Amino acid sequence: METKALVCIFAFYFFLTCIKSSPLQFSKETYLKTRQSFLDAEEKLKIGENLTLTVKEEKANAALMRLKYAEINASRNGAPFPPSMHFFKGKSIIEKSSVFKILQKMPKGAALHLHDISLTDIWWIVKNVTYRPNCYMCQDVNKSIKFHFYANPPPNPGCPWVLVSHQRQVSGDTSKFDQMLYNSMSLVVDDPVKTYPSIDAVWVQFLHCFDVANGMINYLPVFKDYFYEALNEFRLDNVQYIELRGLLPQVYDLNGHTYDKTTVMQIYQDVFNKFKRDHKDFSGGKYIYSSIRIKSLTDILGDVKLSIALKTKFPDYFAGYDLVGQEDPGKSLLYYIDPLLYPQQQNPPINLPYFFHAGETDWEGTPTDDNLIDAVLLNTTRIGHGYALTKHPKVLHTVKQKHIAIEVNPISNQVLKLVDDLRNHPAASLIADGYPVVISADDPSVWGALGLSYDFYMAFMGMAGEDADLKFLKQLAINSLQ
Amino acid sequence: METKALVCIFAFYFFLTCIKSSPLQFSKETYLKTRQSFLDAEEKLKIGENLTLTVKEEKANAALMRLKYAEINASRNGAPFPPSMHFFKGKSIIEKSSVFKILQKMPKGAALHLHDISLTDIWWIVKNVTYRPNCYMCQDVNKSIKFHFYANPPPNPGCPWVLVSHQRQVSGDTSKFDQMLYNSMSLVVDDPVKTYPSIDAVWVQFLHCFDVANGMINYLPVFKDYFYEALNEFRLDNVQYIELRGLLPQVYDLNGHTYDKTTVMQIYQDVFNKFKRDHKDFSGGKYIYSSIRIKSLTDILGDVKLSIALKTKFPDYFAGYDLVGQEDPGKSLLYYIDPLLYPQQQNPPINLPYFFHAGETDWEGTPTDDNLIDAVLLNTTRIGHGYALTKHPKVLHTVKQKHIAIEVNPISNQVLKLVDDLRNHPAASLIADGYPVVISADDPSVWGALGLSYDFYMAFMGMAGEDADLKFLKQLAINSLQ
Repeated sequence: METKALVCIFAFYFFLTCIKSSPLQFSKETYLKTRQSFLDAEEKLKIGENLTLTVKEEKANAALMRLKYAEINASRNGAPFPPSMHFFKGKSIIEKSSVFKILQKMPKGAALHLHDISLTDIWWIVKNVTYRPNCYMCQDVNKSIKFHFYANPPPNPGCPWVLVSHQRQVSGDTSKFDQMLYNSMSLVVDDPVKTYPSIDAVWVQFLHCFDVANGMINYLPVFKDYFYEALNEFRLDNVQYIELRGLLPQVYDLNGHTYDKTTVMQIYQDVFNKFKRDHKDFSGGKYIYSSIRIKSLTDILGDVKLSIALKTKFPDYFAGYDLVGQEDPGKSLLYYIDPLLYPQQQNPPINLPYFFHAGETDWEGTPTDDNLIDAVLLNTTRIGHGYALTKHPKVLHTVKQKHIAIEVNPISNQVLKLVDDLRNHPAASLIADGYPVVISADDPSVWGALGLSYDFYMAFMGMAGEDADLKFLKQLAINSLQ
Repeated sequence: METKALVCIFAFYFFLTCIKSSPLQFSKETYLKTRQSFLDAEEKLKIGENLTLTVKEEKANAALMRLKYAEINASRNGAPFPPSMHFFKGKSIIEKSSVFKILQKMPKGAALHLHDISLTDIWWIVKNVTYRPNCYMCQDVNKSIKFHFYANPPPNPGCPWVLVSHQRQVSGDTSKFDQMLYNSMSLVVDDPVKTYPSIDAVWVQFLHCFDVANGMINYLPVFKDYFYEALNEFRLDNVQYIELRGLLPQVYDLNGHTYDKTTVMQIYQDVFNKFKRDHKDFSGGKYIYSSIRIKSLTDILGDVKLSIALKTKFPDYFAGYDLVGQEDPGKSLLYYIDPLLYPQQQNPPINLPYFFHAGETDWEGTPTDDNLIDAVLLNTTRIGHGYALTKHPKVLHTVKQKHIAIEVNPISNQVLKLVDDLRNHPAASLIADGYPVVISADDPSVWGALGLSYDFYMAFMGMAGEDADLKFLKQLAINSLQ
């Protein structure tokens, strides 16, 4: 908050004192003028409302807003409104929306909250990866599928490896077989409310999807191609830059050789570089190493130290450190305070940027909820989700003061059962009050989204008000690039 | 905001500037101290956290919090959590809760947001009113029921009047028959999500329930008894005072005589007085005359003028004026600005207190949403619902500055489909930041609630955080009495 803002607070304070002490007595004209000033002043607080549009942008905006008003008006009169429906039901409606088609074409800046193994369309895995030679699968007694690439698969009692190509052939119905493979890696079902009755239930399946896909993604040639394809999908969705969190997983090759985390980071750098060479219009990205929040203190200290080393070795592509996984049952930032304080306790202090997931919870007043406090006290660069932020007025104050970006992932929060109707997403308040919000996609492939456009649609249509326009979208892009 | 608060803002501003300019470098001990200060400062902002408890209250609080933690802990580990379930499903679980039983016994202060014809348990109507002589019912081709008291019912083609007592007798199953009568006036169903797929759908049925019950409630002897019974039910739920909105409906007697609005207000005053004579521990209440927000400008001007007259005639029992009905399709406060400005444009200005319903909507940036702005500019004494408040930072500022109470009705907002999981209710932020929130029940009988305790349970368990304790409940009661 700068002097100007302080002067504003003062001015508003005296305005209110003034209102309070004198009885209201308005002519209609005065009333309407006062009302307009109030509306304007409130409007000015919203994300994007301090931007001005060029003449060309104004024209585009007018067209966009006509479409937006028409779609919202239809929904207010009974047509389905995707932000208030489960994404699995609303997706096909979104895809028919003219507003959505414009959003797809618009430059959206940076996607800053993504996880490395849930970016690329699962149909790409099915149609490309599972058709490669040496791709094996097995199915255990519970019909749970695993995949792995092998030159010669080892015996695997209880879940014997068979070539996917062979299974596909004997299935007799390629398209049904491929759909089954898709389903094994996807959360999408016909009746999500019934299938996933609780947050815990949806998280179990969510993590299971990763387990299944990882068997293929972590195979070295696929690993490189998967990430390259991810960058391409985001670029085609008009995203200019991405930052992704990941575990630096154990990548393997056909000979059974595995690669350490530094080598995996090197692979990411190589793919980033190759993609940038191939696509001059793409700005690149960075990687945030992340540990699952169930590890021991010793392991986390090791991960922090590794992050410090990677930050030195890959200054252009390694961004910093985070902790990931379902936040409610996971260990809190406070639990890990010793390793997390390690970098700044060195002499001289080491700057390891943090990008903490915090407040991805509906449970107020719990240790998970308090992760938000530790995130800001540990000087986090951005906050992942920050879903519970609006229940923390002092954290909110700090976030605004220090311009800590809040990475909001609308569809993720809905699919992973924090909120049903996205008009009730707490980020609506943050948007209305000009907080440094960025919109991201978290794990789009797992729920059948692609790139950022679906989440932008939710934010634009359901979380920013009927009157939010191109200025809002432009500011989101600017926020993400700052 | 007083000088003290301003000094606090200053202090916090410099604290943040300080944090921002110096790199964080904490020993673990310093970190934990800083963290505790942050937590304490944030805690202090919450509703109730500036109260101190007596030794006796502290003891009661310890017991209450043990039960609260146990219930929340069970829910965090898989047991159902009523605030995140539809009330029709959660009600029976709430009734088994030890916390709920304590809340029922606690003094809860005033219920400030209620509607006159949906207060008294519908079972009282069924078991008492429908068993009275001269109670007739009719059922049209759509099986839709109407009730009316008659000495001799007139012919009613398409829906012929028959004595309820007769129908009950020929039904052959009294308890099934009575359940059918109950259902005709209640929203409660086994599968509310399926039965009420949208806000519009649930409002249609909601208004229909009133239509059905009104046929009986508006019969003079029942009208008096219904209101007396309402006061009694709230008193038995340990509520000390109530304010109710109503249309001053057309009350009738057996001779077909109807009573005008001033007489109906006189009846309310008489019942209030009788009830206070009979129950010395009850403080009384007030009536807020309310027009449905579909009326013409001329009619609303008439209603405003009537309110001014009633305020003079019934200074102790007539509180002021409001507009009611489903807010989204209804006309906005701005539409009615001429009649609403009328009182203060008189010479000398007339003080007619307003108690506007405003922001009972999920549709941001619409005329309904902007009712919040008109409500505060028209100097509303309290805001009914204010569900959309958190999307209006300047209105929020005014509300805090002018201590405008926000009448939050958790179960109403859930049943009438603004929000599913009450942990996502925006009032959670208002509670966390010490806004003047009061908890009320809106139309409890229609969804099978009774008094205030169910809504208090939702606020205490689902909207105020795991750590909110007796101080929160005490402050809610204090807020309601202020």
